[in-house]
Amino acid sequence: MTAFEALDHLLGPRFATSLAARRQNAGNEAHFDEMLPDAVAYPETTEEVAQILRTCAGAGIAVTAIGSGTSLEGQHLAAHGGVSLDFSRMNKLLQVNAEDMNAVVQPGVTRMQLNAALRATGLFFPVDPGADASLGGMAATRASGTTAVRYGTMRENVLALEAVMADGSVIRTGSAARKSSAGYDLTHLLVGSEGTLGLITELTLKLQGQPETIAAATCHFDDVAAAVDCVILTIQSGLPMARIELVDEMMVRGFNRHMGTALPERPHLFLEFHGAPAAVREEVTRFREIAREAGAGGWKDADTTEARNALWNLRHGALGAISALDPGKEKRTFSTDVCVPISRLAEAVAQAKREAAARGLTCTIVGHVGDGNFHCGVRFDPRDTAQRDRVLAFSGALAEAALRLGGTVTGEHGIGLGKQGYMQAEHGAALAYMRRLKAAFDPQGILNPGKLLPPAP
Amino acid sequence: MTAFEALDHLLGPRFATSLAARRQNAGNEAHFDEMLPDAVAYPETTEEVAQILRTCAGAGIAVTAIGSGTSLEGQHLAAHGGVSLDFSRMNKLLQVNAEDMNAVVQPGVTRMQLNAALRATGLFFPVDPGADASLGGMAATRASGTTAVRYGTMRENVLALEAVMADGSVIRTGSAARKSSAGYDLTHLLVGSEGTLGLITELTLKLQGQPETIAAATCHFDDVAAAVDCVILTIQSGLPMARIELVDEMMVRGFNRHMGTALPERPHLFLEFHGAPAAVREEVTRFREIAREAGAGGWKDADTTEARNALWNLRHGALGAISALDPGKEKRTFSTDVCVPISRLAEAVAQAKREAAARGLTCTIVGHVGDGNFHCGVRFDPRDTAQRDRVLAFSGALAEAALRLGGTVTGEHGIGLGKQGYMQAEHGAALAYMRRLKAAFDPQGILNPGKLLPPAP
Repeated sequence: MTAFEALDHLLGPRFATSLAARRQNAGNEAHFDEMLPDAVAYPETTEEVAQILRTCAGAGIAVTAIGSGTSLEGQHLAAHGGVSLDFSRMNKLLQVNAEDMNAVVQPGVTRMQLNAALRATGLFFPVDPGADASLGGMAATRASGTTAVRYGTMRENVLALEAVMADGSVIRTGSAARKSSAGYDLTHLLVGSEGTLGLITELTLKLQGQPETIAAATCHFDDVAAAVDCVILTIQSGLPMARIELVDEMMVRGFNRHMGTALPERPHLFLEFHGAPAAVREEVTRFREIAREAGAGGWKDADTTEARNALWNLRHGALGAISALDPGKEKRTFSTDVCVPISRLAEAVAQAKREAAARGLTCTIVGHVGDGNFHCGVRFDPRDTAQRDRVLAFSGALAEAALRLGGTVTGEHGIGLGKQGYMQAEHGAALAYMRRLKAAFDPQGILNPGKLLPPAP
Repeated sequence: MTAFEALDHLLGPRFATSLAARRQNAGNEAHFDEMLPDAVAYPETTEEVAQILRTCAGAGIAVTAIGSGTSLEGQHLAAHGGVSLDFSRMNKLLQVNAEDMNAVVQPGVTRMQLNAALRATGLFFPVDPGADASLGGMAATRASGTTAVRYGTMRENVLALEAVMADGSVIRTGSAARKSSAGYDLTHLLVGSEGTLGLITELTLKLQGQPETIAAATCHFDDVAAAVDCVILTIQSGLPMARIELVDEMMVRGFNRHMGTALPERPHLFLEFHGAPAAVREEVTRFREIAREAGAGGWKDADTTEARNALWNLRHGALGAISALDPGKEKRTFSTDVCVPISRLAEAVAQAKREAAARGLTCTIVGHVGDGNFHCGVRFDPRDTAQRDRVLAFSGALAEAALRLGGTVTGEHGIGLGKQGYMQAEHGAALAYMRRLKAAFDPQGILNPGKLLPPAP
């Protein structure tokens, strides 16, 4: 019996080799070409995942996990063919432990699904990358987003994991205890490993109490430098912002064209404050003082739940709105992110604008700037190889600038296919230890091959 | 030239083989017997650490790092002889980056040294395990302490590391950026690895703004169960406590005898609140309501800086005060910790008291209970082997209870020599992956041999 026959026997209709099924997992929201897996498996239990891994390990077949397929560096694409292990049917919310403020979920549960289920409990899961990503995928790519400045990234919000390793063995890492010093931290080694060390089959997530009061608002600035200065002063003042998002004038234009808004086409900050009523009032007042000093204008409260939702829907519509700026049907959006120490943020953003302009590229900048993290979106025509090269050169210049400024080539999108070329520059001698890790955990190299680590020199 | 001759040549008087020097690093504040290294090396630079490692790797000599020597599970003891690599001369504060709220330190800098240097900047380093531990040692053992409930443990407060690996190669992990998705998280793999994967030679630490207002207070309860219930309700209510420490009636008696206090011999909570003035007032009011419901009495504000310092000096004097309860000169204090989900804390503490009583042991309980973490201290006479066995049996029962309640056998003391026997029970199949990691990073097994991982079965 071949490996595929064995998987067919195991999963029946939940193992598919049709072109339609394979194509469904071959695309991406980023700029990568379609990459077809040879088959798609839809397990429903950890034991099935283990059997898939054992079968594929025996035959040396690559296995690439996919959650919602919203990763931005091609992490879910079957770059070396093989099996696309699709977690969409492992989407059960297993436990909500309100008194311990945690939830246990299968990897295919999405963040919105979890938050909908939590609504009545007074708790919520804070990490918000924009897309309605699966929580397994978010952990695997160490996702973060708009609220990380207050609540941390997936790194800070995953307490424990169950994972299936390359040989099909099932391990559990961490516990529901808030901290531990009991040995190597395998939980946070698996978080961000992009499915190259093990496949996450269950997560225990930290939850937060829903804030008593939420205040949201927007304001705008004459230029991006002033907006960034405002952010730097705010963070340095210790204000516990829940969200502080930069939206540059080009992105505002995209929103106005695509989402029907009529915002002044200037750099904006989108803001949110969480806490007890008196504390939130105090924070808004202090922020407004800082913003006024930095030259902010056009303060607008989003003081109803509807207005607040509209604001964040707008922000989360960025990827779609970028297309509206240059809507050619064949065109794609190149989206990249870097993260720098907050004191170098103004410099990094200014350089991004210069590097784009020098190459004749139209670039939007949005960012989780409270963390020093920002995104550049550039539309390009994949058939125009000269333009494509200019986009990649822009991305390279941006990554180099981030490293020069003491930062990282990616704050939250990850390495995947797109950023392997910068791993040596960012990690130097440490890269050899990442390779040792990969070889120790997946000696055959069947887990998501072609991702995260650059080819050995 | 032998390895020791080479080290003598490299370090001159900073390489010592005298019995006096070896004995200085052979002791511990816990209950372990003295363990003599064969030599002590006092490097001053990363390059010297690298040369020591290269030399020892060449000769297969064990290397055990030591900072302040305050670890509680024997992590700094040279269990297999070899070189005690003493970081006390690598104690320079290299940078304070106020606008990025981080500091770069050598591993021998102690937490009090760092905070003294930060005083004028308006920033502080929050992690506070009690002892004036070295920051390298705190990272290596994933230390936490009284403020972890608010600011996190060393895991959340280390941004970047430089480390020397077993073969003498020097790596850098992480960056001053607040987050990254660029590859495997080696920083948080080294944090908590107890010097068994690499030796930390530089740390970039997250700093916090000194709170505008600090309020501290104590209150007491009729029994430990009521105090613990108060803690559980407080945490579940989302109050952002800066410190919430349980001190049981036996520990209070120790304080009264050893530190000259006259506190009612009842279970106490020691409390601290950090924040803007209005927020702190609001929090104290809300806490007092919860505490009153839970039956608290004897509220006492520590409203001057002096009173506050006296309060935390008292708490940090616990280890000394435990001796006062049973002061025999030959006696030692067995100190152990576990951590459970907060909802199981009352059960865990009650069981600890029962298990101690059943064995005729006098046990103090203190704890960072906001995290579900608590410590048991038991005096014993090491010459009385039957008593020693009862103490170890007590510790085993406590560890088993923690696992049964969904927790961990150690919240902050680590594994070291003392808790290897529980690694299989806590980690199951994951333990094999910890062994793979160790073999991949330190194939000769020269880094702190005999620690963290139990002997292979």
